[in-house]
Amino acid sequence: MSIGSFHPPRRMLMGPGPSDVSERVLAAMARPTVGHLDPTFITMMDEVKSLLQYVFQTRNELTFAVSAPGSAGMECCFANLVEPGDKVIVCQNGVFGGRMKENVERCGGVAVMVQDDWGCAVDAQKLEEALLQHPDAVLVAFVHAETSTGAQSDAKTLVELAHQHDCLAIVDAVTSLAGTPLKVDEWQIDAIYSGSQKCLSASPGLSPVSFSPRAAEKIGNRQTKVQSWFLDLNLVMGYWGGEGKRAYHHTAPVNCLYGLHESLVMVQEEGLENAWARHDKNHRTLRKGLEQLGISFLVAEQDRLPQLNTVFIPEGVDDAAVRTQLLNEYNLEIGAGLGALAGKVWRIGLMGHASKQSNIDHCLSSLRAVV
Amino acid sequence: MSIGSFHPPRRMLMGPGPSDVSERVLAAMARPTVGHLDPTFITMMDEVKSLLQYVFQTRNELTFAVSAPGSAGMECCFANLVEPGDKVIVCQNGVFGGRMKENVERCGGVAVMVQDDWGCAVDAQKLEEALLQHPDAVLVAFVHAETSTGAQSDAKTLVELAHQHDCLAIVDAVTSLAGTPLKVDEWQIDAIYSGSQKCLSASPGLSPVSFSPRAAEKIGNRQTKVQSWFLDLNLVMGYWGGEGKRAYHHTAPVNCLYGLHESLVMVQEEGLENAWARHDKNHRTLRKGLEQLGISFLVAEQDRLPQLNTVFIPEGVDDAAVRTQLLNEYNLEIGAGLGALAGKVWRIGLMGHASKQSNIDHCLSSLRAVV
Repeated sequence: MSIGSFHPPRRMLMGPGPSDVSERVLAAMARPTVGHLDPTFITMMDEVKSLLQYVFQTRNELTFAVSAPGSAGMECCFANLVEPGDKVIVCQNGVFGGRMKENVERCGGVAVMVQDDWGCAVDAQKLEEALLQHPDAVLVAFVHAETSTGAQSDAKTLVELAHQHDCLAIVDAVTSLAGTPLKVDEWQIDAIYSGSQKCLSASPGLSPVSFSPRAAEKIGNRQTKVQSWFLDLNLVMGYWGGEGKRAYHHTAPVNCLYGLHESLVMVQEEGLENAWARHDKNHRTLRKGLEQLGISFLVAEQDRLPQLNTVFIPEGVDDAAVRTQLLNEYNLEIGAGLGALAGKVWRIGLMGHASKQSNIDHCLSSLRAVV
Repeated sequence: MSIGSFHPPRRMLMGPGPSDVSERVLAAMARPTVGHLDPTFITMMDEVKSLLQYVFQTRNELTFAVSAPGSAGMECCFANLVEPGDKVIVCQNGVFGGRMKENVERCGGVAVMVQDDWGCAVDAQKLEEALLQHPDAVLVAFVHAETSTGAQSDAKTLVELAHQHDCLAIVDAVTSLAGTPLKVDEWQIDAIYSGSQKCLSASPGLSPVSFSPRAAEKIGNRQTKVQSWFLDLNLVMGYWGGEGKRAYHHTAPVNCLYGLHESLVMVQEEGLENAWARHDKNHRTLRKGLEQLGISFLVAEQDRLPQLNTVFIPEGVDDAAVRTQLLNEYNLEIGAGLGALAGKVWRIGLMGHASKQSNIDHCLSSLRAVV
């Protein structure tokens, strides 16, 4: 056996994530590794926390990055907030609502599913009916921006409904954070998780999360231990929180956090509202070009995510062959459909650093050549 | 708020990990991010798997890197192998045996603790007595190389005992992998986890693991679902395993894996036996120098880990003040004591890329100046 160094090709990442990572973020990841208890590193972690509070638009103390990908961030929310026997209403309108159900059940909770068609937003009326029918529910969970379909839901209204019925709300913001308006405090979201590799355009592997004081209180009052030692917030916060003093919990992914820090600095430099506006503007440009190619969208106009464009594969076109050709000949990655949408749609991302005119131009001209 | 880019200092990392990360590994981490389903990335993951099989000295199919730090690797082993009610004998001779107990209990298992003094190896006779006393035990767990004390245990003998009593053996190799002899197949270890940031000298954030066919069978025959969706091997292996075809599970930490790949290529270039010999040789050199300074070791000679030297803080020396001075004036990180050893010992690592003459020289001359 003799295996050499790996030299990846330079792709243009316009799938559902990871998105293009900027040279600035890549350079940050290559800076010298310091110890995870080094005072300079702890200062940087404090900055990551402040910057995450900014992009989440929250003052929640309990705001940090889980040292693992978005699916661990999801698990962090459920494992900490769900106790055995807890009833959780899960609104599903795509793949990731199904994963929430798995999480609830593996935590010993009871999931009540509220189903909407894939590609549609979550229907607030159906949630209200479920809340009336299940007055013993303690949590509501839904996906703000469904990565499998490109539909966004009205998080503010859904959280309000949850609160009216004395439930806390867990929100999946993996694809929405920094790409489309999201206001954790104003909308009173109780627990939220995201990923580093979508609209933040850092490398995959970290999951920003935030918990309201109300959620922190429920976690503090648990009757049972959190089933995951690694994700137990009572332990993790000894490391991320506090006033300068850090208790060792686990070894933080040092260089990955350098990258996340730099990507957050870039969002701060641009301004969050400007980032949202850029995603919206570029979506409109791409959409116009796709429509000129006769390609139509899965999601109704008012529910479309600007950062993730899910479009029907034109009739007679070989899904896999075209994606392979785009990758091999144009170094362009677009995403396949997931679950029930496999083979029927493509998911074209315009996320973070990838949401720019040159990417739109390359994507449209490549599609024009290939389809 | 205006936060700028983070520029870490260049430290010499001679604590218990992370260890110095080489320029080659840092450069690898900064290569362009590709999609986690890109064929080139999948080929790289196959290479990571082969290289991990080499450093673990195993043919286990179920060998890969958990997308999170070593403590998640530990949790991966326990969450998959422990079912509610399972009795697990945990040998504890430092901090990390205690964490194993936490894991067993959070998985609904019953932990039987076998205690040895911190700084000593695990006593095989005590394990045998516990196995005789608990014939219903199904698992034995112990730490091969205790990161909190620098003691190594006789993994081969302990695993043999476990097997004689029909138990599977879970082994913590966070600090041993690639630093000291470890032979998963020859010693018939059933489940093992390590970290990327010790003797492999990759950045922290990944946990190499390997499972024997016997362990895989126990996991396949579980009566209950693995409580962690993120760590459920039945799902993870759809992504890492198989013949070229990958099912989407979670988004892999792409650039972190570039770094791990490069660090494994470097171990392969050096040769595993040569790496073990280098760690041993450098340990002897450091030891001689420390003894000349009148500094003595916690662990008896025959049980000492070459890559982690735990020494008593000389009398009258201010622990925290000296470590701060070493860091600030000499850019040298050494480790504090953990748990019961806090304030009593230092942990001086000679791990991976940091195990070299120039580090030893700098460490000894800095200590000489400061103590």
